[in-house]
Amino acid sequence: MADAPCPIARTLECIGEWWSLLIIRDALQGLCRFDDFQQSLSIAPAMLTRRLNTLIQHRLLEKKLYSQRPPRYEYHLTERGRDLAPVLLTMLAWGNKHLTPEGPSVLLQDNVTHHQVEPVLVDKRTGHPISMRRHSLVAGPAASRGMKLRLLRVQRHYDQVSSEQQTTPSFEEKHHE
Amino acid sequence: MADAPCPIARTLECIGEWWSLLIIRDALQGLCRFDDFQQSLSIAPAMLTRRLNTLIQHRLLEKKLYSQRPPRYEYHLTERGRDLAPVLLTMLAWGNKHLTPEGPSVLLQDNVTHHQVEPVLVDKRTGHPISMRRHSLVAGPAASRGMKLRLLRVQRHYDQVSSEQQTTPSFEEKHHE
Repeated sequence: MADAPCPIARTLECIGEWWSLLIIRDALQGLCRFDDFQQSLSIAPAMLTRRLNTLIQHRLLEKKLYSQRPPRYEYHLTERGRDLAPVLLTMLAWGNKHLTPEGPSVLLQDNVTHHQVEPVLVDKRTGHPISMRRHSLVAGPAASRGMKLRLLRVQRHYDQVSSEQQTTPSFEEKHHE
Repeated sequence: MADAPCPIARTLECIGEWWSLLIIRDALQGLCRFDDFQQSLSIAPAMLTRRLNTLIQHRLLEKKLYSQRPPRYEYHLTERGRDLAPVLLTMLAWGNKHLTPEGPSVLLQDNVTHHQVEPVLVDKRTGHPISMRRHSLVAGPAASRGMKLRLLRVQRHYDQVSSEQQTTPSFEEKHHE
């Protein structure tokens, strides 16, 4: 999977196992010491060490000495690690919507206005919300022949669906266009 | 982890293993038949069956009969499954930024304008970009006592960092505020 051309597959490969993302979550919230991670995750020390080392190897975390005697380290997010925040926040929003019948236990807040925030994915340039109806995946400059063929096949499938929908527009489309 | 109060941990538990997200990726792109998934993922049939069943059990996919004799099924995304698109698109953006030294092989396109789109996460109400500098996680109505304590501890850590930053605002802050 490491050689997969798909950037999603590469991301999954790089993040590794679920524990890794929970460590990133904790680090994004400010945890940086071994004992804090261990307490937060209730994970065996040997396992935590292994996961931290994997994250360092993938350059998501970096180790910083904070005490000389005895030598003690903190684990800080790199830019690459911090850039995973949107992945975790979309997971948070999805979990809150679909997996919390008792109501959400964690919400996102704007620290300036103190309003509760619903995160949505938009086109950076136009602000238009991203939807698999309006947007699609296309081959980039480094796409292999196989990837191009695959994306073209998918595109054709969508064009078909979309032209069928244009004949009988749904409420949602009438409302938005 | 299934009993974890954190919606991110629950999401990870629900999505299961990496293969599951790659099946969702393919389904979001329009694949729905067993053979298509198998070809796309190069995965053993028994393993694919197991993963599909897990996704059905978690109500991310649903099975639809498309041929009576012999009985054949298609696998379609539920609303819950389609709602995972932002998780995969933020992974795509991250993979494109950090893991494709040869250039991106897959890009997101606006089907109306045919422009390439950079997806960013914003506050749905105000359009303000989400950043762990301006936004933070706070306890929701269903937060346990442990979760509240944990989030308060993190909040204090951020308030400290933030008040230090206000004394010496960074370029980024000056530029945005």
